[in-house]
Amino acid sequence: MAKNLTPRKNDYSRWYNELVVQADLADNSGVRGCMIIKPYGFAIWEEIQSELDYRFKETGHVNAYFPLFIPKSHFSKEADHVEGFAKECAIVTHYRLKNNPNGPGVIVDETAKLEEELIVRPTSETIIWNTYKNWVQSYRDLPILVNQWANVVRWEMRTRLFLRTSEFLWQEGHTAHATEGEAVSEARQMLDVYGDFVEDHMAIPVIRGTKSANERFAGALETYCIETLMQDGKALQAGTSHFLGQNFAKAFDVKFQDKSGQMKYVWGTSWGVSTRLMGALIMTHSDDNGLVLPPKLAPIQVVIIPIYRNNDELMELDKVAEKIFSTLKNIDIRVKYDNRDTYKPGWKFNEYELKGVPIRIAIGPRDLEKGTAEVARRDTLSKESVVLENLPKYIEELLSTIQKDLFQKAKESRDSSIHIVDTWDSFELALDKGGFVSAHWDGTSETEDRIKNKTKATIRCIPIDNKKEDGVCILTGDQSKERVLFARAY
Amino acid sequence: MAKNLTPRKNDYSRWYNELVVQADLADNSGVRGCMIIKPYGFAIWEEIQSELDYRFKETGHVNAYFPLFIPKSHFSKEADHVEGFAKECAIVTHYRLKNNPNGPGVIVDETAKLEEELIVRPTSETIIWNTYKNWVQSYRDLPILVNQWANVVRWEMRTRLFLRTSEFLWQEGHTAHATEGEAVSEARQMLDVYGDFVEDHMAIPVIRGTKSANERFAGALETYCIETLMQDGKALQAGTSHFLGQNFAKAFDVKFQDKSGQMKYVWGTSWGVSTRLMGALIMTHSDDNGLVLPPKLAPIQVVIIPIYRNNDELMELDKVAEKIFSTLKNIDIRVKYDNRDTYKPGWKFNEYELKGVPIRIAIGPRDLEKGTAEVARRDTLSKESVVLENLPKYIEELLSTIQKDLFQKAKESRDSSIHIVDTWDSFELALDKGGFVSAHWDGTSETEDRIKNKTKATIRCIPIDNKKEDGVCILTGDQSKERVLFARAY
Repeated sequence: MAKNLTPRKNDYSRWYNELVVQADLADNSGVRGCMIIKPYGFAIWEEIQSELDYRFKETGHVNAYFPLFIPKSHFSKEADHVEGFAKECAIVTHYRLKNNPNGPGVIVDETAKLEEELIVRPTSETIIWNTYKNWVQSYRDLPILVNQWANVVRWEMRTRLFLRTSEFLWQEGHTAHATEGEAVSEARQMLDVYGDFVEDHMAIPVIRGTKSANERFAGALETYCIETLMQDGKALQAGTSHFLGQNFAKAFDVKFQDKSGQMKYVWGTSWGVSTRLMGALIMTHSDDNGLVLPPKLAPIQVVIIPIYRNNDELMELDKVAEKIFSTLKNIDIRVKYDNRDTYKPGWKFNEYELKGVPIRIAIGPRDLEKGTAEVARRDTLSKESVVLENLPKYIEELLSTIQKDLFQKAKESRDSSIHIVDTWDSFELALDKGGFVSAHWDGTSETEDRIKNKTKATIRCIPIDNKKEDGVCILTGDQSKERVLFARAY
Repeated sequence: MAKNLTPRKNDYSRWYNELVVQADLADNSGVRGCMIIKPYGFAIWEEIQSELDYRFKETGHVNAYFPLFIPKSHFSKEADHVEGFAKECAIVTHYRLKNNPNGPGVIVDETAKLEEELIVRPTSETIIWNTYKNWVQSYRDLPILVNQWANVVRWEMRTRLFLRTSEFLWQEGHTAHATEGEAVSEARQMLDVYGDFVEDHMAIPVIRGTKSANERFAGALETYCIETLMQDGKALQAGTSHFLGQNFAKAFDVKFQDKSGQMKYVWGTSWGVSTRLMGALIMTHSDDNGLVLPPKLAPIQVVIIPIYRNNDELMELDKVAEKIFSTLKNIDIRVKYDNRDTYKPGWKFNEYELKGVPIRIAIGPRDLEKGTAEVARRDTLSKESVVLENLPKYIEELLSTIQKDLFQKAKESRDSSIHIVDTWDSFELALDKGGFVSAHWDGTSETEDRIKNKTKATIRCIPIDNKKEDGVCILTGDQSKERVLFARAY
């Protein structure tokens, strides 16, 4: 495999697209805006899924499954919600094809037209709240703590693999509660579940905050978010958790009888992360040689490659390598021994570097003599000779070190890219440097819109526990009580 | 919870529908033919998924994800395939809604019409083979052993929860091989993966066989299947594995260069099981009191219920019950302690009986005195008093016994419902009794059609390793070399 990546500094966006395809993560399909997630990419997504699912269940949630299709009439019941999604949805209008009477192939059978069109879910609040109406009668039925792993469709005009595709995979939590306080706590809790997962497992530092009204989810009273910063200085929203108030309960008439016998509307939340996380993962750690994966999410954490000139040498190496393989496997390390004879060692080195395997162990005849192996780190590209008997412990510790180092490196890079500015000129300069810009804003949607039109930057979030500080808006000069974080974003 | 199930002998179909809803497995949605899988039902599906996924990976398969939508032109490339699915598919024709200018709500924006319609996948052979074209160049790229967990849509006119719904969840394996022999072995292997899983985990006996031409998958050269028998004497196809020959490779031009440099078409298989398995599970083991679950798939294997008259008693019981709970949990038993004070013990007994929890442990003040607990089996409804210190071992063994007993009971029932007949009259009588009917058939599609029209019975399968035996067709009297299994089926 020849390395064929455009260097990041030449064209970051091109580097990203090439890497996604060359590292076998995903590919464009013949279907506009829809991606194919290839086995290697999907294996990373499965690691993400499995850990998140575990954390959801640990916090009391259960999974369920709701229909792919939403009748148009349900979809339009919550006014802000339909406004937010109507312009980008796939619509099913017919349910049968027939042979083309005028040529080859098939055509839509016009006699099989649906009475009511079905929307392919862009998100499932409407179908789910329509269901919760039947699930909730009494306070004893609350809370409902449900999550769904699903595909959703939002018709995007400009798509990019993982970052913005017409169909994507995600999870969506939808909860219903007896009190406002409980719903707010739930939304806040899930923000932390996301934040902790992204930092601990993906090794990506996050800023937790709330969205301004402009960037809030269609139908929510408050949107909590985790914001991350990519290597090119653009921000990426990695997850959101919404406090829905009673909006959907009122739209779908979901009420419960409380302990005193009174009928009340329930309070709701929804929260989700998607295959977009894969984009964040790639753009946080990878380099010009390819993908760099944090060990906790790497489908292959360690690859063993034999270096040999002939079959006799390979047979000798096999014995030692297979012992290393089973020792590592026994301590739950995801290890692969690649002794295929259809590819040369150099090709394999490149291949696993491109695919971001955290540790490579190479072993050749000279290592055998010395009783050592060469251990290479993908993140730093450094190599070390390690005595075979020390290998298991060494590898175990190294995986943990790499995980920590990746986070630390990403955090230093992110922290050094938060610019605090007080004037419009320095605001624009800082945006051009890339990163988050911490600035005063007068709190109005109009000003945020004007800033967006001038600079393409949006308010990424108002950090949780933001310091209160008097100041003046960088654009209007009006009074402000706190700084917010602006950035250009994916 | 009042028990409110129609007895099976009165109306089996009604019993089924009521049970699915009352046991919180699934519900009808506001969307025609689409179901909601409720958390308890979905938890069983997750157990099925997790074990199957493990078995797929153990046999060398990897997961991937392909688009939900298939362009109409791809869809029609394999002639038999489009013929088989064209009449039941959901078709996306537009990608935007707009505000209704003449009233409230939203309408389809006619200016946002797709140039080419998209079919919501009823199965993914076409989109996947269109992709494999890009994945395969050389023999080194083979085999491809890919599986996908996904939702699919087949527009059904008459739907029943789990058994036949417009949208359902499933997995679909799609493999590509260098040789015919390898592809046939793969199809055959996956049949055994399914058969072993259904017998070992679902405790449902299966008959492994091949389909007649009439019942074969649209586009396959051979369809292998596992057939099961429900309590009401109707058969249910629980899984299929197809040898596709080179049909899709030719339709999508998927060729590879072999070791000698020759270009050849690849050989394919596909195989799938779906949420229909939930229907088979319910209709094999359950009774007039509700669901009966085999321990290996039960989300809750053991429930502990305290019997008390006042809070002091509950506090005493809590101490002992929580100890039992953690002891069982430590030996990996899925156990729940239900000490809610919002429901009475009798209600709880009914609830967990309805939900098929394999073992109930009840503990009251008199048990405390004696140092025992009352252990009840869901399958036999028998009860026994067990000394507390013996409980963990007793429960562990009982779970294993229940799993075996359920299979044995289902197998005896199935075996006693295989009727061997040699005349048309006895054939019709046997069908009316219910069960499989083993009879000679002349091997033609016409005869199979005529039998189906007369009796609603189809050939469920020609068993693997079927005994060769000369005879005459029950309908036509023409010569036959082996018996096949007929049945009325779900």
